[in-house]
Amino acid sequence: MKLEELGEFGFIDRLSGRVRKGPGVVLGIGDDAAILAPAVEQVTLATADMLVEGVHFDLALSDPHTLGRKSLAVNLSDLAAMGAHPRHALLSLAIPPTLPVEFLDDFTRGFLSLAGEFNVTLVGGDTCASKGGLVISVTALGEQHPDMVVRRSTACSGDLVLVTGSLGDSSLGLELLMQGFRSGRAVERHLDPLPRVEAGIRLAEAGLATSMIDVSDGLLADLTHILDLSGVGARLDLARLPFSEECRHHASAAGRDPFALPLAGGEDYELLFTALPEREAEVRSALAACGVPVTVIGEITAVGGLSLTDPGGKPYHPERLGYNHFGAIRDA
Amino acid sequence: MKLEELGEFGFIDRLSGRVRKGPGVVLGIGDDAAILAPAVEQVTLATADMLVEGVHFDLALSDPHTLGRKSLAVNLSDLAAMGAHPRHALLSLAIPPTLPVEFLDDFTRGFLSLAGEFNVTLVGGDTCASKGGLVISVTALGEQHPDMVVRRSTACSGDLVLVTGSLGDSSLGLELLMQGFRSGRAVERHLDPLPRVEAGIRLAEAGLATSMIDVSDGLLADLTHILDLSGVGARLDLARLPFSEECRHHASAAGRDPFALPLAGGEDYELLFTALPEREAEVRSALAACGVPVTVIGEITAVGGLSLTDPGGKPYHPERLGYNHFGAIRDA
Repeated sequence: MKLEELGEFGFIDRLSGRVRKGPGVVLGIGDDAAILAPAVEQVTLATADMLVEGVHFDLALSDPHTLGRKSLAVNLSDLAAMGAHPRHALLSLAIPPTLPVEFLDDFTRGFLSLAGEFNVTLVGGDTCASKGGLVISVTALGEQHPDMVVRRSTACSGDLVLVTGSLGDSSLGLELLMQGFRSGRAVERHLDPLPRVEAGIRLAEAGLATSMIDVSDGLLADLTHILDLSGVGARLDLARLPFSEECRHHASAAGRDPFALPLAGGEDYELLFTALPEREAEVRSALAACGVPVTVIGEITAVGGLSLTDPGGKPYHPERLGYNHFGAIRDA
Repeated sequence: MKLEELGEFGFIDRLSGRVRKGPGVVLGIGDDAAILAPAVEQVTLATADMLVEGVHFDLALSDPHTLGRKSLAVNLSDLAAMGAHPRHALLSLAIPPTLPVEFLDDFTRGFLSLAGEFNVTLVGGDTCASKGGLVISVTALGEQHPDMVVRRSTACSGDLVLVTGSLGDSSLGLELLMQGFRSGRAVERHLDPLPRVEAGIRLAEAGLATSMIDVSDGLLADLTHILDLSGVGARLDLARLPFSEECRHHASAAGRDPFALPLAGGEDYELLFTALPEREAEVRSALAACGVPVTVIGEITAVGGLSLTDPGGKPYHPERLGYNHFGAIRDA
């Protein structure tokens, strides 16, 4: 069935019939606006991300179900980086009129499956026709006690720089997809990233992270946001950089710098944060409790700028910092 | 200057430098998420609308400044229809990389000018490249006491049906634009609609509206939402329908049904609401206090469905109900 047969309101009815109402939702989809009841003594965290066909995704390379999941995941990753509990989402879609309803059904099922895993309620949005490709716009709302929220701007000289999980797999996955591969760990990490929601909340609520961001543009680009906003610098030790054997193997096979993807690849959706050195053990135990690996990769310095040391102890100069829309490649 | 020279982060810096921080904003643009402090004993109202080039607007027919205003206005109109005080907005843009930065500057100035008029703070969003035309996605957040919020689903048999302002001008304006006209009242109402924010708040806070919606898809389509959700019907008297002399004149000159645009044209962004007959005088005085005209156009009936009476007292059957994305024309 084509969307033009089902119609806008038919699609919204189908969608809203599948939504489970979570905490804080007084009224969900179906009125001019959703009615949400904020919890007592909590602030609201609000973030928005857009995914554009041909820019962020290629319908030939990603199935609708995982695309639906990823559309929400990238937003929940932003909430995780503030240490917030995700609560609500709004989903707006500009849809090519010939897109099959089955595609949209799978897409929304994927979106709602991730929403269910994180107890997020879809409370509103918009659907309209697109003259170009599919455009997905999501707003996510979360909550946290005001004293627990973690910002980018609060790193201090002497803090450790840490990162969860491993870096570079997502951009490797994209390369593999473009080479024709359709499965494997790296491909899955690119198509279906899992936001580090519980890790972010644990770090925030135990007061362990002194600053935090999610790795979406690439480690160096995202660390630069923390440094610029905090007015500090950092030293990173590339020997400690966590990246997969697969990542190392592919770089070696292609005769490429093994640090290029982990440093600048982007879309890892890991948490990059700073912490006091004397609390490192607490950080490790908090994250071990939710099964999330963590690695110290450097430290914050009073002197501005970013200095990188390669495994041989020599200064390392990256070719690029990360992804920047419109500016193509950001030079280091 | 092209956007690719300024870059994504340059654009965001320019934009955030122009934002004035209103009430309830702990942290605005610049982190993974905005931090918003909800007011005590208020619920949050959340709504989202998308505007797509070639579908909702044509860059040849609308200047960037008014397009920026309209992008926010259509969202504030949804908050007005709930009786909410608008507070915050998130703006996501998928931008053709060759679009001049001057266009985006004018667009955001327009957006922020309307935001300033309604004390709304732009707190976040996203900017990315588009492979097609410009896509604008806005989420607006508002507040109101939970007992004051007005829904679509609460109209009762015997209530009056009322509408603010006049209907049909916006769709007439679109027709005139397509015929080459670039100014005049109807054209302005189409390009730069003013949301009925104060009227919505007054009706809500005085407990005068028993149900409410904004007229975006067309009077009949939007009234149908109220009727369906409230489980009631309505009788409308077309002789009472408020529409401009210009609208009447154009229909007459074209030999067209004068009621077609006011009933189904859409994008009027007036408030359509119901009220108890014994409170009509209070409604009139509340709206007169903010300079908003109001007209009783019919009444709610226990029997479902919508019956229209023409000025001669005969049953009237509309050709179409209103605009529906994907479904093209919704038949009556």
